[in-house]
Amino acid sequence: MTRIAILGATGYTALELIKILLRHPEAEVAAVTSRQEGNPHIAMIHPSLTNRLDLTLENLSPAEVASRAECAFSCLPHGASASVIPHLLDAGCRVVDFSADYRLQSADVYQQWYGQKHPDPDRLGKVVYGLPELFRTEIVRSRLVANPGCYPTSAILALAPLVKNKLIDPKDIIVDSKSGVSGAGRTVKLTTHFPECNESVSAYNVGRHRHQPEIEQVLGTAAGQPVEVIFTPHLIPMDRGILTTTYSRPIGQLTEENLLQVFREFYDNEPFVRVVDHLPGTKDSADTNFCDITARIVRGRVLTISCLDNLIKGASGAAVQNFNLLYGYPEAMAL
Amino acid sequence: MTRIAILGATGYTALELIKILLRHPEAEVAAVTSRQEGNPHIAMIHPSLTNRLDLTLENLSPAEVASRAECAFSCLPHGASASVIPHLLDAGCRVVDFSADYRLQSADVYQQWYGQKHPDPDRLGKVVYGLPELFRTEIVRSRLVANPGCYPTSAILALAPLVKNKLIDPKDIIVDSKSGVSGAGRTVKLTTHFPECNESVSAYNVGRHRHQPEIEQVLGTAAGQPVEVIFTPHLIPMDRGILTTTYSRPIGQLTEENLLQVFREFYDNEPFVRVVDHLPGTKDSADTNFCDITARIVRGRVLTISCLDNLIKGASGAAVQNFNLLYGYPEAMAL
Amino acid sequence: MTRIAILGATGYTALELIKILLRHPEAEVAAVTSRQEGNPHIAMIHPSLTNRLDLTLENLSPAEVASRAECAFSCLPHGASASVIPHLLDAGCRVVDFSADYRLQSADVYQQWYGQKHPDPDRLGKVVYGLPELFRTEIVRSRLVANPGCYPTSAILALAPLVKNKLIDPKDIIVDSKSGVSGAGRTVKLTTHFPECNESVSAYNVGRHRHQPEIEQVLGTAAGQPVEVIFTPHLIPMDRGILTTTYSRPIGQLTEENLLQVFREFYDNEPFVRVVDHLPGTKDSADTNFCDITARIVRGRVLTISCLDNLIKGASGAAVQNFNLLYGYPEAMAL
Amino acid sequence: MTRIAILGATGYTALELIKILLRHPEAEVAAVTSRQEGNPHIAMIHPSLTNRLDLTLENLSPAEVASRAECAFSCLPHGASASVIPHLLDAGCRVVDFSADYRLQSADVYQQWYGQKHPDPDRLGKVVYGLPELFRTEIVRSRLVANPGCYPTSAILALAPLVKNKLIDPKDIIVDSKSGVSGAGRTVKLTTHFPECNESVSAYNVGRHRHQPEIEQVLGTAAGQPVEVIFTPHLIPMDRGILTTTYSRPIGQLTEENLLQVFREFYDNEPFVRVVDHLPGTKDSADTNFCDITARIVRGRVLTISCLDNLIKGASGAAVQNFNLLYGYPEAMAL
Repeated sequence: MTRIAILGATGYTALELIKILLRHPEAEVAAVTSRQEGNPHIAMIHPSLTNRLDLTLENLSPAEVASRAECAFSCLPHGASASVIPHLLDAGCRVVDFSADYRLQSADVYQQWYGQKHPDPDRLGKVVYGLPELFRTEIVRSRLVANPGCYPTSAILALAPLVKNKLIDPKDIIVDSKSGVSGAGRTVKLTTHFPECNESVSAYNVGRHRHQPEIEQVLGTAAGQPVEVIFTPHLIPMDRGILTTTYSRPIGQLTEENLLQVFREFYDNEPFVRVVDHLPGTKDSADTNFCDITARIVRGRVLTISCLDNLIKGASGAAVQNFNLLYGYPEAMAL
Repeated sequence: MTRIAILGATGYTALELIKILLRHPEAEVAAVTSRQEGNPHIAMIHPSLTNRLDLTLENLSPAEVASRAECAFSCLPHGASASVIPHLLDAGCRVVDFSADYRLQSADVYQQWYGQKHPDPDRLGKVVYGLPELFRTEIVRSRLVANPGCYPTSAILALAPLVKNKLIDPKDIIVDSKSGVSGAGRTVKLTTHFPECNESVSAYNVGRHRHQPEIEQVLGTAAGQPVEVIFTPHLIPMDRGILTTTYSRPIGQLTEENLLQVFREFYDNEPFVRVVDHLPGTKDSADTNFCDITARIVRGRVLTISCLDNLIKGASGAAVQNFNLLYGYPEAMAL
Repeated sequence: MTRIAILGATGYTALELIKILLRHPEAEVAAVTSRQEGNPHIAMIHPSLTNRLDLTLENLSPAEVASRAECAFSCLPHGASASVIPHLLDAGCRVVDFSADYRLQSADVYQQWYGQKHPDPDRLGKVVYGLPELFRTEIVRSRLVANPGCYPTSAILALAPLVKNKLIDPKDIIVDSKSGVSGAGRTVKLTTHFPECNESVSAYNVGRHRHQPEIEQVLGTAAGQPVEVIFTPHLIPMDRGILTTTYSRPIGQLTEENLLQVFREFYDNEPFVRVVDHLPGTKDSADTNFCDITARIVRGRVLTISCLDNLIKGASGAAVQNFNLLYGYPEAMAL
Repeated sequence: MTRIAILGATGYTALELIKILLRHPEAEVAAVTSRQEGNPHIAMIHPSLTNRLDLTLENLSPAEVASRAECAFSCLPHGASASVIPHLLDAGCRVVDFSADYRLQSADVYQQWYGQKHPDPDRLGKVVYGLPELFRTEIVRSRLVANPGCYPTSAILALAPLVKNKLIDPKDIIVDSKSGVSGAGRTVKLTTHFPECNESVSAYNVGRHRHQPEIEQVLGTAAGQPVEVIFTPHLIPMDRGILTTTYSRPIGQLTEENLLQVFREFYDNEPFVRVVDHLPGTKDSADTNFCDITARIVRGRVLTISCLDNLIKGASGAAVQNFNLLYGYPEAMAL
């Protein structure tokens, strides 16, 4: 049994994490933190947790967190997360970080895309990117895991088999993603006000979404050479789910049959990647830790379609998968 | 041609009003006001108006409004509206007030339900309630019209024929309403954040919604005796539309056929009330100024179902209908 | 470990049932039946089950079902269900019936509301209604359970404490329910075609929905006297969830505090009923086996609001709860 | 005043067409046809037309249509449409064809993509493609107009300025489109059953959607050279709206400023194309005849984003625009 603290527990990924952990036989949620005044009960913020988790939200110091829990999941915003995590590690905690703080390996790239100095730059480049399908061995022996972004997971799982096997031109990749609104978080704003985004679809952050360098870095590592993507996220009027369509240029001859075979072999023993023949919809993977992937050849171009639940395989499910690897529990436990 | 000013033009009812007025051959939108800083172009706030209305939002005094327009539609919040309207009237404008400020006839009731002193109490009781189906004659000869609330319109149109004809017990009426989210306005808040209200239905303000005294007052006037309702509003995950189901107790014998006949006669020449045999859905009246009504007898109780578009017949369409009456234009013009 | 067969496994309640059973440590889904031609793999019908359940849909006789499974869940349509179940019982299976076939105690009432002769009338009146909160003792010692309807569960749980304690007039009860579209099943029809029901709310089957006699019968049993309800279902543009608002007349003096206390005591040890102070939304109970209930006094009338997930507490979760009781597993196992 | 017949009036495009024509001062809807038995009133099929159009659906021969109307809008399915239209033309009608029958210029291409012999092959190549922004002059002098497909309108308007000005490589174009569900029509099927497509996004007909050759043909005409596109449509859980994102490769140097300037000049006097700086959402153009377009340079690639209402600018609004051109009415009348 591992005692767990969840830092920044008022958001949607924290809620989803708690729901998963409540059915995890080896995890006990021991503390939930927030800077909310008055230490409200967690069920005041998340009514769906009524009678399910009896904890109040507390504003705890890293030392207090470490005294209550062996493992911390940080759902804090970027910047805040990397300010706290070094203290947690020093105090003996293992940490799964939901923020982007330890995903990028370069403090310069971080500063360029996140607009602030990195609070813990020396650790960058030494933290594993928590995508078990690519980095399982490293995750197992880590104490800090940078949990992947939701869009990157959908794009990387769809493209890694192609770039790693050098089947496509790494400089000619288009990633067109469609995401449900929960990906934007629980903070109210006009763009996610119901009458604004309901019954509408729109692109946002075109050419400047922070997940672009993350996708490129991880695919570059997989490819062993630089990878460039054009990444366009779209907001879809639904709660959860990401569907990512990629377009790339094959280097040699490639039939659709070969292509699907490449994916099947690459993910042969993976518990949470389903290579399918049909065109998957996000609903197929909703409320699960699966990423569904298929591929097509269209007019000589490689097209992949992948989908997942942004709050689960794109966040909290992946985090628990990483937690299981960190602590030697069966990888699929509670998932 | 009548020049029009719209006060508080950043909200959804103002947007809908502008869209209707743009196709009104006798109306010219001459000014749109707001306290937004920097006088943004209206299309910055409402991108759907791009290339359709070339005005900037200005913070205008009542005198400036009156110098630009003969008629003012006030979409200001309650309290603010009644602080401005007396000046507009004095300056010669006619006014259609979207706020609740002049709907209730008693300053005490207003204070009790709106939690503040009425800014213009002496005028209360002298302002016509802008429901043409009940008060057309008075509207025609008015200079100020209190545009009805969206829920009240759906409830009053469904119940007025019954209470006016003394067919039901005026003290045993239940009004169960279901509204789309645009009714909550454009100000962001957690309850109308997409991932909170999408895929969910909930009741709110049970027993204490401000539209209850409004419904009771207008039905009481129609009935010539006090009317009491229990009013329960529910939030539905859709943009627009209200469906109201009422339950009341017939006083004498009443067949379903008689009942529907009462409605048909009551609304015989009404351009915007459709008495129908089928069970209407809000989509039937969406984007129109119609209110669809049907009625049933269920186990000896009278049940009515009415629906309308909360932004049109429940707000801006009704306002234009009132405007047409105020200025002698054909009542259905642009609607 | 109990081997399970699911009869009529192409619908939404069967899908939900499978998902719950897949995480049940004491259940093994051993057979899934359907009259679909060609014995398709279950994942061809429900792509979300890809890699999760490796079974083909078969057209099995009751004897074949009994040879493969100890327990059968029948998701067959009414009429078909009661034609098969007697054979399953004779062959030694225990059965949870999702259809309405064994819910009503009178063959005449069944024929009146379902428009056909009951195929197994002698068993009526001897089958327990599978609502553990009211009939747990009887369920435990049964071999056949009539799993409750979704609307009835939401209404009965909200009203049983009131009628059982004789706190309200049993002849003056209004039940106004709002349901997501999955309640209408997986068979395509125009009313559940996306562009018809999306962005719309409507009432249906007013005064003649088959769940009315079911609600009345079960509440009548609880009350020890006849109960009459006016039941109005509404279709809401969302996947899942039912919110039921009831209005009834208290017999004596009743404060809101007393009222809530009655509910708290009634459901004191119930694992799946949450009596809450706030106004619950269906999303709070979505994807769970909980029914959330609150109550108010409004103008001297009792108002209750209850919500649940129609596919879980309103169908498949309740079925697994009944299964656990039938087999002596912990009642909340897998829920 | 022009008398109009609508052939195949039970679908969504016909409904939208009727709504537009009802506010057209020079159009009179004189007949609506369907093979529905029993000549139901149009409001039985489209309840939103109650009290607005008093016509029954009739199964009329071309001669009967021509005796009642000068102009016919054919909303018949492909194949059926081209079987009727020659007779209508012979009888003196002008025709706007919503089907794909006269859009493609080659009977072979038609047969390849639509799987059937063209019923009127000799006319192919002589019928104008009803996109006024490209072919206004030809439309004005036509008697038959092939009304464009919804996806093609969104793609062609976004790409025509680029291919016509030879700014992009015509063989390297990706068109990723997202459409609301009304585009799939009113015929019920599982993929558009609410619980299937709600809260989900998926691609469909990847690499084999019939709008691909249509886009290529019209862009090829505009470019004066063959154009190839990879076209991927996606189904979005909303009623109406298409957002199309295209990716193409510039031939020479091109700044974002130049790019937007190209669009502004190309559509300088167009009443229904709005070139905007911001990223448009489909809601901006919903219920209007506008197509909103913007463009970006991302990592050396040209990206365009265009959106429109698939039922209006993508179908019935465009048809009325064409009707206005055919009859010499102001192009924007009723739009």
